[in-house]
Parts: sequence; structure tokens; C-alpha cells
Amino acid sequence: MQDPERIHAILDEAPVCHVGFTVDGQPFVIPTLHGRRGDRLYLHGAKASRLLKHAAAGLPLCVTATLVDGLVLARSVFHHSMNYRSVVLFGTGRQLESDGEKLEALAAISDHLLPGRWNDARLPTRKELDATSVIEVKIDEATAKMRTGGPKDDEADYALPHWAGVLPLRTVAGPPEPDPLRKADVPLPSYLGSR
Amino acid sequence: MQDPERIHAILDEAPVCHVGFTVDGQPFVIPTLHGRRGDRLYLHGAKASRLLKHAAAGLPLCVTATLVDGLVLARSVFHHSMNYRSVVLFGTGRQLESDGEKLEALAAISDHLLPGRWNDARLPTRKELDATSVIEVKIDEATAKMRTGGPKDDEADYALPHWAGVLPLRTVAGPPEPDPLRKADVPLPSYLGSR
Repeated sequence: MQDPERIHAILDEAPVCHVGFTVDGQPFVIPTLHGRRGDRLYLHGAKASRLLKHAAAGLPLCVTATLVDGLVLARSVFHHSMNYRSVVLFGTGRQLESDGEKLEALAAISDHLLPGRWNDARLPTRKELDATSVIEVKIDEATAKMRTGGPKDDEADYALPHWAGVLPLRTVAGPPEPDPLRKADVPLPSYLGSR
Repeated sequence: MQDPERIHAILDEAPVCHVGFTVDGQPFVIPTLHGRRGDRLYLHGAKASRLLKHAAAGLPLCVTATLVDGLVLARSVFHHSMNYRSVVLFGTGRQLESDGEKLEALAAISDHLLPGRWNDARLPTRKELDATSVIEVKIDEATAKMRTGGPKDDEADYALPHWAGVLPLRTVAGPPEPDPLRKADVPLPSYLGSR
């Protein structure tokens, strides 16, 4: 696998991934949360969900994570593009069975969502853990692709009177919105404090 | 199809979609730009690309567009979630052949990227148009899913001393970055002016 560090960094930065699987020749692409520890990607969900059932059965998966970094405006329509970073990963799922493995993977998914949160929330009960399917996918057949930088126009087009450059895009967090149903005022935790 | 207006709005707001297709039982999920006019979704790319070849062949596709709106922090790990809006669309591609159809679809993709840009860029040459594959997918078998609002905890958990609520997420544009290779200063066009 080329450049595992870059692949891991993209997987870690993307808030969601898109998981592809095939049922009777029909592809499905489902967005879902994920987590990573080392060279293992983790997915989770209700045991009854089609995605989780399929992933647990060990059938071929494709997991894609994409970060959109900007619109690239060239002078020609043809050379318009997008700056992005993406990972496309092929593999099969393995359903985790032991409580220890499942909890570690769920902690990885929680850490990915928001580092520090796992230790500041009620951990799963027996019943909740049993209702949750956790899937491990080994990150071995994966490729990262990216585009960075400004537009690449044909030489003759640089003289055209069209603005060219990049409109950068990024995902930002707004101010945390406390649950209106809260019964006590809990101070904003430090892992949300700098927002 | 349920709620076409909501489906169209999600497709229009998502900067990219993820297209799933299957080759010899192996699913592929590829991020790409798209555009929409009415109940037609448009994809484009180089004729040589695997995605475009596959889409042009009329094999089953799944096109998924996802907007991540926020992290939902419940008091229990189990009820953590994400606010999102997504569309999952099943269909087959039809390769557009006439220049008129292709240009209209490319204009839709350009409008989706940045309204107003199509009329402020050099349009495709004969050679560029011939090198571009444009695919139409009818939006008839599509579903929108979404989650909004705060966490839903188990009744007993509301008394726990964990912060709960939503961390809103959104995609924002930064200041436009002019091409360092520009030969003349072109004023920022109005469609970028309010950024």
C-alpha cells in the first residue's frame, strides 16, 4: 500500500465515509461514521441494518472518504476542477465478537468524532453492546488521491479576461448548542472549549 | 418517489456525490462532481475513466450525496449520532451524444459548482467536448434521509453530569485565491464577490 500515513490522515479528517456493497448486482452506497486504530478501520451500527449485515457477512466492500478542499476555476470550462483528498479502500468486513474488541473499536469511532468524548459519556450497557454490530476492515488495499494548487489552463487561455484561481472550502464547527432538554447546567467540556 | 423537492435540494447543496458501481462483484465508490436539471442528474469526466465507462454502459449505479450538519452528543455513548441529510439514488446512466445535450448538462454541472461561472469562462472546443463523457441519470428511484435536532437519551440518563447537545458543522468558503500564474489582474467576478 502506498503512503499509509497520508491514507490514515485522510480517513481521520473525514467526518464520514461512504461504504459501497453489492446486493444481487445492485450497488449500494451508504454514508456512515467510522474510526481508525493503526491499520484497522471500524464501522458500527444496529445489527438489523443492511449495511452492517452485509459487512458482517464478509462480502466485498469499498470504503471511500473524501475531503473537498476547494473549487478550481480555470479560464476554460474544460479545466475547471476541484481540490480534494480522498481514500478508496477495498476489503472485507470482520464482525467483532468479544466485548473488549467491540469497546475498543467503539472508542476509536468516538475518538474520531470528538477526541475526549468517550471518557465523558455513559458507556454501553450489556443490552446496548449486544444490539450494536461492530465491523473491522483491514486497511491494506487502499489508495489516496488528491488535487492541490491552482488551475492549469492551456497556454493560449492565460490571456483570457476570466478570473481564475481557487475558492477554498472547509468544514467548520459552529458554537455548541446545549440540549434544550437538559436538566442541569453542565459546563462546556474542555474538548469543546476552544470552539 | 417521496418528496422530490427535498431530494433535489440535498443534491444541489452537496458539492460532490459518491457514485457506486460494481465490477465482477467488487463494489467501487468514487467521489465526483455532479449537476442537476429537473429530474435528471448529470455526471461527467474523461471518456477513459472507469467510472464514466461503466456509467455509459448502462449498468446499475447508486449515487449518494451527503451533507453533514452536526455531531450529536448524547449522555450515553449509545445515543451519539450525527445530524445529516442524504440522498441515495438508484438508476442507470445514459451517455449523452448530441452537442446540445452535452453542453446543457455541462452547464448544469458548472452552475452547481458556482452559479454564473458558465457564462464567464471559455466554452469547450470541439476536441474538448469529444474527450468528455457526459452521463444522465434519471432521478426516479431515490430516497432522502435526515436527522435533525438534539440528542435523544434514555430517561434515566438525563440526570448524568455529561454535556449534551449538538456541535453544528458546515462547509464554508474562504477568501478566493487568485491564480499566481495570472497575466492580467481580472477583478473578482460578482458571483464570487460576496465571499
